[in-house]
Amino acid sequence: MYGYTRLMDHLINELTKMPGVGRKSGQRLAFYLLKADDEYVLGLADAMRRVKEGVRFCGECGNLTEGDICAICADEDRDKSVICVVEDPQDVQALEKTGQYTGVYHVLMGAISPLDGIGPEDLEISRLVERVAEGAKEVIIATDPDVEGDATAHYLAQLLRPLGPKVSRIARGLPVGGDLRYADEVTLGKALAGRTELLGSSDF
Amino acid sequence: MYGYTRLMDHLINELTKMPGVGRKSGQRLAFYLLKADDEYVLGLADAMRRVKEGVRFCGECGNLTEGDICAICADEDRDKSVICVVEDPQDVQALEKTGQYTGVYHVLMGAISPLDGIGPEDLEISRLVERVAEGAKEVIIATDPDVEGDATAHYLAQLLRPLGPKVSRIARGLPVGGDLRYADEVTLGKALAGRTELLGSSDF
Repeated sequence: MYGYTRLMDHLINELTKMPGVGRKSGQRLAFYLLKADDEYVLGLADAMRRVKEGVRFCGECGNLTEGDICAICADEDRDKSVICVVEDPQDVQALEKTGQYTGVYHVLMGAISPLDGIGPEDLEISRLVERVAEGAKEVIIATDPDVEGDATAHYLAQLLRPLGPKVSRIARGLPVGGDLRYADEVTLGKALAGRTELLGSSDF
Repeated sequence: MYGYTRLMDHLINELTKMPGVGRKSGQRLAFYLLKADDEYVLGLADAMRRVKEGVRFCGECGNLTEGDICAICADEDRDKSVICVVEDPQDVQALEKTGQYTGVYHVLMGAISPLDGIGPEDLEISRLVERVAEGAKEVIIATDPDVEGDATAHYLAQLLRPLGPKVSRIARGLPVGGDLRYADEVTLGKALAGRTELLGSSDF
């Protein structure tokens, strides 16, 4: 316990259960809330409650929605035959910001991670298999470029290729605006291995 | 906005108003809350609301309490003639943990900081003057050892000394367990200037 009043100690305890909130930041947040306007704090408490009640996962792809189907799956202009597989709803937002993707998504809700006890059966994979079997032309695997994301990509490729679609993985390479001399050797190795031929001035 | 659903974007916006919570950590917290047990999230929302309703500041010293007077001011064994002045209720806890102080406290709710537009009139100083005038023997100024804390200590010493009490400032020096060679020169200078004579083996 923290030695303030019973209610403050309880609030700090609850706050420190959140990721990245330790003893010190829990106390800082609790004191901020104590001193903040009533209106703000009650509004924040209400926003938390309403997210739990109103936000759910799309029955088609697993993205966030306040209805049954998310805005992307409901959009008739999106190409339903191309499915981009990501780990989390945040990744959907990151890809949407590129403005370059016109297919749909599938959110796995994590990645295969034996160390954390997360196997394929803990992810939204059976629904993905169904969707692919319904006739996808291409599956783009956009899990994170780390050990878990790569293991998941490998597993999915083995599982989905027999069903017919082209299965691809997003490219690894140097980030745009980055500096070659500061790139780590693994990224640089992937950038070399994934080099693309320059055929004309339109390449730049 | 963040591009998730309306309720999620609203929650992230509210979370990022808290100190030390930026865009990324706001999103991380919102997703954590979205995925957490209903029981935990509703409990956290409730803990926030109850702190706003149930925790107030002690009418005597400004420390936190759920009644009118805090536990320290209500304790008949505490010496009411010695008042330790601190910036925040967190400082009261830090001093209580030493187990060495038997007087009472006065919480200023900040420190004088012209750069932040905080002057003496924004702090709980008039109540402190009243308490000292009622017959304090000693006022120990334990504001932070930084520019604002020192300016506040200087201001309070000028204001309170004419009222009669001994006015002291907590010592600055090397932290216990610290390493002299890594101490900054200002701390080392204060440690030299504040040296105490060694009179016998009981000094250690």
